[in-house]
Parts: sequence; structure tokens; C-alpha cells
Amino acid sequence: MLPSRMMDFPLTITHLLERAREIHPKSEIVSRMPDKTLRRHTYADLERRAAKLANALTKLGVQRGDRVATLAWNHHRHLEAYFGIPAMGAVVHTLNLRLHPNELAYIANHGEDKVVIVDRSLLPLFAKFRDRISTLRHVIIIADDGPTPAGELDYEALLADARDEYEYPALAETEASMLCYTSGTTGNPKGVLYSHRSIILHALVGTMRDALSVGNDDIIMPVVPMFHASAWGLPYMAVTTGAKLVFPGSHLDPVSLLDLMAQERVTIAGGVPTIWIGILNELDKAPKRWDLSTVRTMVIGGAAAPPSMIDGFSKRHNLDVIHAWGMTEMNPLGTVARVRHHLAGKSEEERLAIRASQGYPVPFVEQRHVGADGKTLPWDGETMGELEVRGPWVAVSYFGDEGADRFTKDGWFKTGDVVTIDADGYMRITDRSKDVIKSGGEWISSVDLENALMSHPSVLEAAVFAGRDPKWDERPVAAIVLKEGESVTDGDLAAHLGTRFAKFWLPDAYVYMAQIPRTSTGKFLKSKLREEHGDVLVNGTKASSSKG
Amino acid sequence: MLPSRMMDFPLTITHLLERAREIHPKSEIVSRMPDKTLRRHTYADLERRAAKLANALTKLGVQRGDRVATLAWNHHRHLEAYFGIPAMGAVVHTLNLRLHPNELAYIANHGEDKVVIVDRSLLPLFAKFRDRISTLRHVIIIADDGPTPAGELDYEALLADARDEYEYPALAETEASMLCYTSGTTGNPKGVLYSHRSIILHALVGTMRDALSVGNDDIIMPVVPMFHASAWGLPYMAVTTGAKLVFPGSHLDPVSLLDLMAQERVTIAGGVPTIWIGILNELDKAPKRWDLSTVRTMVIGGAAAPPSMIDGFSKRHNLDVIHAWGMTEMNPLGTVARVRHHLAGKSEEERLAIRASQGYPVPFVEQRHVGADGKTLPWDGETMGELEVRGPWVAVSYFGDEGADRFTKDGWFKTGDVVTIDADGYMRITDRSKDVIKSGGEWISSVDLENALMSHPSVLEAAVFAGRDPKWDERPVAAIVLKEGESVTDGDLAAHLGTRFAKFWLPDAYVYMAQIPRTSTGKFLKSKLREEHGDVLVNGTKASSSKG
Repeated sequence: MLPSRMMDFPLTITHLLERAREIHPKSEIVSRMPDKTLRRHTYADLERRAAKLANALTKLGVQRGDRVATLAWNHHRHLEAYFGIPAMGAVVHTLNLRLHPNELAYIANHGEDKVVIVDRSLLPLFAKFRDRISTLRHVIIIADDGPTPAGELDYEALLADARDEYEYPALAETEASMLCYTSGTTGNPKGVLYSHRSIILHALVGTMRDALSVGNDDIIMPVVPMFHASAWGLPYMAVTTGAKLVFPGSHLDPVSLLDLMAQERVTIAGGVPTIWIGILNELDKAPKRWDLSTVRTMVIGGAAAPPSMIDGFSKRHNLDVIHAWGMTEMNPLGTVARVRHHLAGKSEEERLAIRASQGYPVPFVEQRHVGADGKTLPWDGETMGELEVRGPWVAVSYFGDEGADRFTKDGWFKTGDVVTIDADGYMRITDRSKDVIKSGGEWISSVDLENALMSHPSVLEAAVFAGRDPKWDERPVAAIVLKEGESVTDGDLAAHLGTRFAKFWLPDAYVYMAQIPRTSTGKFLKSKLREEHGDVLVNGTKASSSKG
Repeated sequence: MLPSRMMDFPLTITHLLERAREIHPKSEIVSRMPDKTLRRHTYADLERRAAKLANALTKLGVQRGDRVATLAWNHHRHLEAYFGIPAMGAVVHTLNLRLHPNELAYIANHGEDKVVIVDRSLLPLFAKFRDRISTLRHVIIIADDGPTPAGELDYEALLADARDEYEYPALAETEASMLCYTSGTTGNPKGVLYSHRSIILHALVGTMRDALSVGNDDIIMPVVPMFHASAWGLPYMAVTTGAKLVFPGSHLDPVSLLDLMAQERVTIAGGVPTIWIGILNELDKAPKRWDLSTVRTMVIGGAAAPPSMIDGFSKRHNLDVIHAWGMTEMNPLGTVARVRHHLAGKSEEERLAIRASQGYPVPFVEQRHVGADGKTLPWDGETMGELEVRGPWVAVSYFGDEGADRFTKDGWFKTGDVVTIDADGYMRITDRSKDVIKSGGEWISSVDLENALMSHPSVLEAAVFAGRDPKWDERPVAAIVLKEGESVTDGDLAAHLGTRFAKFWLPDAYVYMAQIPRTSTGKFLKSKLREEHGDVLVNGTKASSSKG
């Protein structure tokens, strides 16, 4: 091999911070405070205050590689932590304030957090696990909604005392910059340790016009929490381009968000479907209340976006929703569901189907899907297999090395999603791999069956899970919650499904219940269903079931 | 330091090639052939034919790190070389067909080219240096305008015989991918050896909306030659996004280019100012002849774009010209002259001045300018100094190590441009460092004086150069060519300049001549002027000068 003659210039967050000062000092950062007033800063402030934070943390004994945690909403100080902590060579560990205190205790200990920066409003939550963090040395309070409790360190007081210049160390781009935990329904949460390189490459690709299309003239509102997968990298994309940032703080109700979007003339906002469903409802109620003419893109990710919502925003409010898919393990952006130029001539319905898919991979993310036998499957839009990905911003292992079975020997990450991929590279999630029903070598999508069942007028909720079967290994079983006052027979439901699915996809049993068990985050807890009703096909009895 | 847990996934051209096959197989490549017909290929063809080229070259004995040269216009086969050669681990060396055969002989020998791929139409030029390439083993002819001469290898015949799959090696991203020579007015040409990493990062940043804004819906026409600094990376940006590519071949006259732009509905075109000046003239002559409504951006670089041209395109033809600056040593993109959001409220004149500047650095390019004493200068928009740059796609040394004085000890590349930088980071080239006049510690811009002199109604051309001065070291001397039938005095010209410049900027002598000596590429040859007239202030005589 012949070595090139180009500079060995690392891709680090430090460059972005220096760029904020040198190139984009006037760009704005707007934060909604606890009392709903707005506070305004500039990128020059960001750089100065990030340096002060780095000096303050150094004084508190934080060293290269140490984890400094945040337990905070989206605001300018969280942004300072996003930059100052990695630039000093430490690691910002974003704690998810939606988790149970037991999970948070586990995560903070597993991450060996030395310092935690906490919003004052979150102190009641923090109190529930603070004493259980064995590595904890300092707590710093962001006290916007009242006085800092006696004996605690105050964020602003620390910054006031600190120098506003910091001699940032020369970092390797592969050094850790940020730690995020992902919590599944089984096992302990697992840590994903981002590098400077992964954050920078993710931000560069994310700004591309075919991805999230972020430019200097944008006004970006990350509704997606900063404690969730680096807020999809939106803060880093903003600082790369000098875009204006608008942070909603803790005010995430639809009306507050719409007020902020209209007032600050937001052009890009990103959040999970539930946020956008709430916003669509408000807009439907009062279509002319807010001037959203500046909004160019609403990015939806974190869960599948219903086509009806994408269509509703587009048709009723002339707003463009972009569906994206990713995972904490991939920084998180993987695919974006844009209609490419060679597909622009398709019918409206087909284009909507493309926009509602998970999308095609952004540059440098590679995808494949494999069957139960481990073989790579064809991109025919029909064959289901587990999605595997690789790329410069995909995890190679978890921090602490749990979950090694999620990484293949030939260098791919097993996403746990069961998908189809079509000839144009568009990927569609049909199930989680633990929920897909493996029936005699064929895979049956529980999600597709659930969606169809829930379209029946008498059905309130449906969860389809794998029942054990002596002949086929697994067969679909449907758990059904009926709407009040409604009644159906198995035959009614089978007839309803029969018009859409092949016969071997139809459930072999229907179990009627008053409520489907759920996880703490509201997802169907199918492991419980399997535990209680998994033998319904073997025993022929429906333990604890009741027909509505 | 704490190592991250992200994949070590290299940034290579191989990924783009595989992406062309998997994700963007249907995207189009249009090439203008020697007979002016158009030939159409797809990205699937590109991937297949690049693999065939790699197989053919392997059979010819090309190994990892070997240089394979091209002497060719812009067309689909040159694109195949851009991808197939680096992906196989070899280095594509683009020979500049505008150079003198002596220079080409030097460059091909210095690069140790093993194989040369030549357009048949360029065989007369190639014949002038072919026998002087001591490392040459094979010549491959692209024969579109007639038969391949007997005894020569034919490009298409080689591909027809080759397998269309290639087992691409796992490359390090720092390996060499492309070799380009830069030829100044002094010394031998110098080789710049790009890496896979530098080409990929450059392409990712180049596609950003604030840079060249390249997306899947673009139709890109690189008028800038592929033998010049990777055609500004446009081919790589296109394949990253799946955009359509349109290659003009050897037909670079304004009417042919305009026909092609209109016919193929080009959205982005890139070229040097002379190309655009010719196009502007044609458009002015026949404003309605071509439908250019699809054109979104015309990128101008390689030399300063006159503000009048930027304004003319915008006002008379509603076409948006983007001025960019770069160098072969930086892959080449450094700065882009876009008006940022915080400057959008400026007057039209101020905005035009920003658009006519060299622009502000794209992400991960860092700039500074230093004075004669080596000290970094303030960004005040006035103080002149030599521009230095660094970043992941800036050369750390030349191939062969000539020109070591162009690289500073603290890791910056000395561009040789004398510039100002303003508080918003916009950089303006005021001179080449070898031409700036260093008068008693102050720097005087020869370019500014020349532009002012050439705006005098009697002056056809003016070149300002440094005259030796016993007291001030150097003082400006102006070489003047008058328009036919015109006459002026030194006092007329001094009065003309006096309204615009401080007194110490005014030339101490005017030398009138019939013609200003020029380089082979048409630039003023100031070294000759200094040689012949540099002592005019010391001797008090004007050797061989004549007042018009």
C-alpha cells in the first residue's frame, strides 16, 4: 500500500467548538425556561461557557475519559455539556429521565459517573437513586426554578468563578465522547459509547440534503430529548452549520411546542410520533392559529410513523414530514424515507408508502437482512429477515461488553428488527425479531396482523404473539381487547383477516382479555403473553381468558 | 483516554462503488461523445465496468499502490477510472492535458506511472512524451473517434474480456487514492497525493447545503476538467447521493455547454470563470434561446469571479452563481461564498461583495493568515497576510517531498495567497504572496492597484509589481498598456488612484509597454517584469520602456 500525503487531522467536537467561536459567533440559541420565558444566547456564549464548564469540571477533579452525567431537559446548558465535556476529553453521559430510579441507579453505576449535572426540577427523581451511585463525587445543580439547595454546587456559580478559556487537549478521533444507554424489555440496559469520529461523521451525513438537510439558514428545534441518542445529533448538526437552535425545555405539550415553533420561526423540528400526533390534533382543531409557514421539515423517528399522520400533515396543513429510522447503537441515524428522483413519477399512494417506510440507508451505513439460517436474503421487498447494519457510527460492542450476541463475527450489528428490503434499498420493519412468529420455516409478522386486527370496528387493541405448536414450532395467537359493548367470534376475526393475508398467516387461536400487559414505556409486553398463553395451542385450553 | 466502542469502518471509495450498485443502480450517467452524440449509462453500469477495469488492470500487472494515469476529457470512462482504480487499491493519476509535453513527461516520470489510459483524440499530445516515461508498461486507448491503432490495447476490448465482479481489498482510509500535480510559475510541478479519507470527507462536506448543496434530485455537469483536482470532487459527490451526472466530453464551447445544460435539465454545473464568462456572453446575445429553469447553482472556482459576472447572471438571467475557493493541495474545496442568515439583511451591494469574496471555510477546514514576521493576524477585514489552512483534506507534504517550505512546523499549509479575513470569517484574496509589495513593513496589494488602473478609460492592461527601493525595500511599479490611440501621464494615473488608495499605496513609477509578458496559461509573468524593470527606482531609468 501507498500512504497518502494528507494531514492527519482528527474529527473532533473540539473543532466544532472552535468553529462556533471563529466562524459562527453570532448564531443564536433560544431556551424555554421552567417559567416559560425565553432566554437567548449566541454561539460565542456557547464556546465561552463550554470553556468555563471545562475549567470548573477540571477543578472538581474530572480527568480525561471520566464520565460526567446529565439529568436534564433540552436547554442551552445541556448543549454546553454536549460540547465542553467531550472537548476536554471527558465523556458526557446523558441519563434518561423517563426511566425508573432502579434503572437509573444501575446505569449511573455501570457508567461509573463521577459528576452529575441535574436540573433542579429533577432533584426529586435524582434523590431516588443518588445515594446508590458509588462512584459519585460531585453534583451540580442547574437552578432555574428556585434556589440551589444549601450545600450543593450551583452550575452558574461554578461558571462565574471559572476562566473562559480552556487549553483543549489534542484528542484522537476514536476517543469516547458520549455515553448513552439503551434499555430493552429484557436484560439490563446497555451502554453505547460514541466516539468523536462517530458524532462528527454522523453530523456531516445528517446535514446532507438527502438526509435531514440542515443549513446555516435553519432554525432547529430538537423536541427529541437530549438524553436520547444525542437528540439525533441535531445539536451537532446545528453547530456544524451555524444554524439557530431552539430548545423547548420541559414544555413538551403540543400547544407550547406550536407556540414556540411559530414565534421563533422554526424550520426543522424533530421528535417521536406521539409528539407529532398531539401536534396534528391541535392543528386540526385550529388550523389557522399558528403560522408555520417557515417550517420546512418535521423529522419523525424513534418509532414507526403512521402513514395517515404523514398524509394528514401534508394534505391538511401543507407540512412535510420526513420519516427516519435509527437506533441508539448507531448514533442514531440509519435510514431516511425520502422519495428519490427515479421514483418521483410513482402514484401518490406509492409515494406515501415509500415515505412511510423506514427509508434507505444514508451514505456509509450498510444494511443487510438475514434469515433464521444466517444467510443473507434478497432485496425483493417481500422476504423477511433480521436487519443487520454496519458503518463508522455503528457500535462494535457495548460498554462493559454485555450483549455480545448482538454483534456478528463478520462485523455487523444485529438490530433485532425483522424487515424487508426492496430493490431500491428501502427498508421496512415488519416486526421485532423476538416477536416475529417462526412457523415451519416461514416468518409471520405480528405487527402486520395486529394492524389489521385493530382496523376491525369491534377491536380496541390486539397483540399477536407466538404460541408453541408441536408441528410448526410456532403459530400466531392473537390477544384481543374489545371495545366497550362489542362482541365478536373467532370466525369474524378470521374472516376479517382472510381478505388480506394468506391462510397460513391467520392466528390459530384468539384470546380475549380486558387489558394487554405493557412495559413501563407502554409497549405490549409479549413475553408476558407468551408466558401466560403460549401453550394455548398445546393444551387446547385458554388459561385465564374471557370472551368479551 | 477512553477508547470508544464504535466500528472501525474505513472511509473508502469502495463503499461508494458498492453503494452505486446496491442503493443507486438506476441513476444515470450521460456522456457527450467526440461526434457530439450522447451515450447513456447507469450507476449499475459504472459499478460493473469499474470491476471489469480493475480486473483488466490486475491482469496487466497493476498492484496495490501502483499509479495508473489518465489523459482524458470528462466522460463515463474517466469516471470508471475514478472509482475502479482506487477501489482496487491502486492510484489514479490524472494528467493535465493543457500542460506542455515537457511538463507532462516530468509529471508522468515523477509519478512513476505504470499504465496510461488515453483518449484517442489525445494521442498526438501523448506521442510527444510517451517515450520519455521510463516506468510505463502499458497504454490503453479509449477509441471513440476511430479505430484503436494496431498494437495498442483497446479500453473496450479489455473490459469485454474481463469479469464484472472484483474482490476489492480491505483498504485503510489513509491509503493513497488519487495523484494530482499542481504547476506553479516557478519550480517543477508538485504532486498532491489524496487519500480515500480525504476524498470521502471532502465529498460529504461538499454535498452540504451550505457548500455545493448536492442531492439525489440533482443533475450535475462538471465542466471543470476531471484532470484538475478531482473535478472539485463533483463526481464523488454525485455518486454519494445518486445524482445524475452529465459529462460534456471535449465540447467546452459555450453553445455546446448551454445546449447540454438545457437538454439534460442540469441543476448544478461547475467550472472556471472563463467558461462562465463565455456562457454569460451567449446568454446576453440570446436570452431566450435556452431553457435553464432547472439550473439551481453554477459553481465558480479556480480563479476569482468578477462581481459583474455574478451580478449579470443573477440580474439578467435569474441564475445563481456560487463562488468557491480551493487549491489542488486541498482536494480542492476550502471556502464557499454564501451569504449567511445573520447577513441576509445587508444591502444588495454588500451582499454582492460577500458573494464575490472567496467565502468562509467549510466545516473542518481551518484558516489563519500570518504577517511577514510569522505572527497570526486579526480578522478585521483589512490586515493582509499569507493564508494558511489545515484540515483532513489538506496536504501534509508533496509526493516526493519537494516544496517542504510550503508547510509550517505547527502543521499548516502555506497557500501562497495574500488575504484579508473579516470578523465573520469571510476571506478575500488580495494577491499572491510572491506578488504582494512589501513596502516598509506594510503590504500593498498589486491586484487592487491593477483593478483600479484597468478601470481608467485609457488603460487596456496594467500589472503592478515590486520595484526594489533602497529605503522601503519594495515600492509598487505599474506596467501599463494603453488602448490604441490613447495617451496619459503618470500624474493622470496617480490622480485616478489617489481617490481610492492611501498615498503610500500609489506606484512610484509607471512603465509603459506594448504588451505585458505572460505565462503559458495567460497570467501576468511578474517575475519577468521584476527582472527587466525591478531596478527602475534605483537606477532612475526605465530600460526598454516607451510612453504610448
